Amino acid sequence: MTHEFSTIARYAETDMMGVIHHSVYLIWAEAARMDMMDNMGYTYTETEKSGIMLPVTEVKFSYKAPSFFEDKIRVECAVTHMDNRRLRIDYQIKAGDRLCCTGYTKHIFMNSESRTSMRIPTEVLDKFRKYFTPEFEQTKNK
Amino acid sequence: MTHEFSTIARYAETDMMGVIHHSVYLIWAEAARMDMMDNMGYTYTETEKSGIMLPVTEVKFSYKAPSFFEDKIRVECAVTHMDNRRLRIDYQIKAGDRLCCTGYTKHIFMNSESRTSMRIPTEVLDKFRKYFTPEFEQTKNK
Amino acid sequence: MTHEFSTIARYAETDMMGVIHHSVYLIWAEAARMDMMDNMGYTYTETEKSGIMLPVTEVKFSYKAPSFFEDKIRVECAVTHMDNRRLRIDYQIKAGDRLCCTGYTKHIFMNSESRTSMRIPTEVLDKFRKYFTPEFEQTKNK
Amino acid sequence: MTHEFSTIARYAETDMMGVIHHSVYLIWAEAARMDMMDNMGYTYTETEKSGIMLPVTEVKFSYKAPSFFEDKIRVECAVTHMDNRRLRIDYQIKAGDRLCCTGYTKHIFMNSESRTSMRIPTEVLDKFRKYFTPEFEQTKNK
Repeated sequence: MTHEFSTIARYAETDMMGVIHHSVYLIWAEAARMDMMDNMGYTYTETEKSGIMLPVTEVKFSYKAPSFFEDKIRVECAVTHMDNRRLRIDYQIKAGDRLCCTGYTKHIFMNSESRTSMRIPTEVLDKFRKYFTPEFEQTKNK
Repeated sequence: MTHEFSTIARYAETDMMGVIHHSVYLIWAEAARMDMMDNMGYTYTETEKSGIMLPVTEVKFSYKAPSFFEDKIRVECAVTHMDNRRLRIDYQIKAGDRLCCTGYTKHIFMNSESRTSMRIPTEVLDKFRKYFTPEFEQTKNK
Repeated sequence: MTHEFSTIARYAETDMMGVIHHSVYLIWAEAARMDMMDNMGYTYTETEKSGIMLPVTEVKFSYKAPSFFEDKIRVECAVTHMDNRRLRIDYQIKAGDRLCCTGYTKHIFMNSESRTSMRIPTEVLDKFRKYFTPEFEQTKNK
Repeated sequence: MTHEFSTIARYAETDMMGVIHHSVYLIWAEAARMDMMDNMGYTYTETEKSGIMLPVTEVKFSYKAPSFFEDKIRVECAVTHMDNRRLRIDYQIKAGDRLCCTGYTKHIFMNSESRTSMRIPTEVLDKFRKYFTPEFEQTKNK
């Protein structure tokens, strides 16, 4: 199962080339990821209160076509790798029907007190299974 | 008549004080303003194509309470002053039912070729009348 | 005495009008304010560690001319009002010799535990006196 | 030869985890890249005026340690791949002596009128040779 998130490209997100700045796709991907976690019944705010953080350890995004101000942006995302220490989430970002960007983010589970890597409790990991769709790593490019 | 616009506070919009950074309210106000113009039947993209720009000449925002990551943000806005050379738009920004911020932006109509101030054609000005609500300058604070 | 801070306008700070987005001037003003506090022998990080926060309660900025990518930005700032509960800081922002923007931010001293307004200790307030220049409220516009 | 660029981590660049948000490293990398091009005797503004754009086609960044507000950030960068249609630039980003992030961006040369991929004129490509250091792809991680 994948998750879908929508937003509208903002004026402040454009640059002087007349398109959305490439860094903005990371912000949209993050908003989609947080919304997906919300849908798991596990908001990020609660996650941090429970002493677990999910910092980003790696990002890779490929840009295929530009998006523009006022475009309706759709982000599809899914968990593509998971174990009890780390996660990978993949993204497909479209403006209307135009495929603009695909990519992934990698995360570790981190204890928010000690700020060190931790094993994730099974009950937390189970929530991520709902969106565990390893084949999306490939299909996101289509 | 006033216009209502909604968005969700993003993680990237927080700062180390644990709240939404004060500059973000300008971005949300802009998104609400553009959405209001869209509702007038006059998208900003078309406005710029037609050779008219609406740069910001002044902003004033008062911060009354913080907003937080994942808050549902509602921006209410209306045109409070207008003549054939300039506009003022007022904003009330709430997180759920909590009044967080009120403010205004002032704009001039600018010719996008010459980049100088221009008189706005009557048919364009008429579209803004739909949201012309001068009393909102006061009521936005309540 | 006023404080001077310099930075270079970044590509990501431009918008599709080809100029620096109006919200960016708040970010530059903040960077200048923090640098001024650093110069007082009082870094913001220390301030927050000591349990004092300085949230923004009001901003007002007037835009006089655009600034562009790669412009050398100079922010001049000073404390223009201060008492034991609040501060006002004024800004003049130039791109080279061109006056682009003037404005102010208002702040309260806040206890970072209780998140309520507090009286500022005299020894902290004394540090701000170094840059207390009330006449800059007017001279910044010249 | 590599290029060095410095900046200070801004308050607005922090997030509620108390660290610099991961998307900001792309902005710093871009600022370093533009500064490097400036040093080649070829400002980006001129590049765009001459009808050549350098859009980002891919980014990959690995996060090794956090950076914090007021950290002195140093970005070292170099051209690691180049031919007459595309470029790769690698980055090492440190906060003081702490290695925080390494990564790369890929670019194509694009005709700004037609917005299609183009061959780069030899005299332009020659300017990039000054910073052509393919071994930096590996050494940036040390």
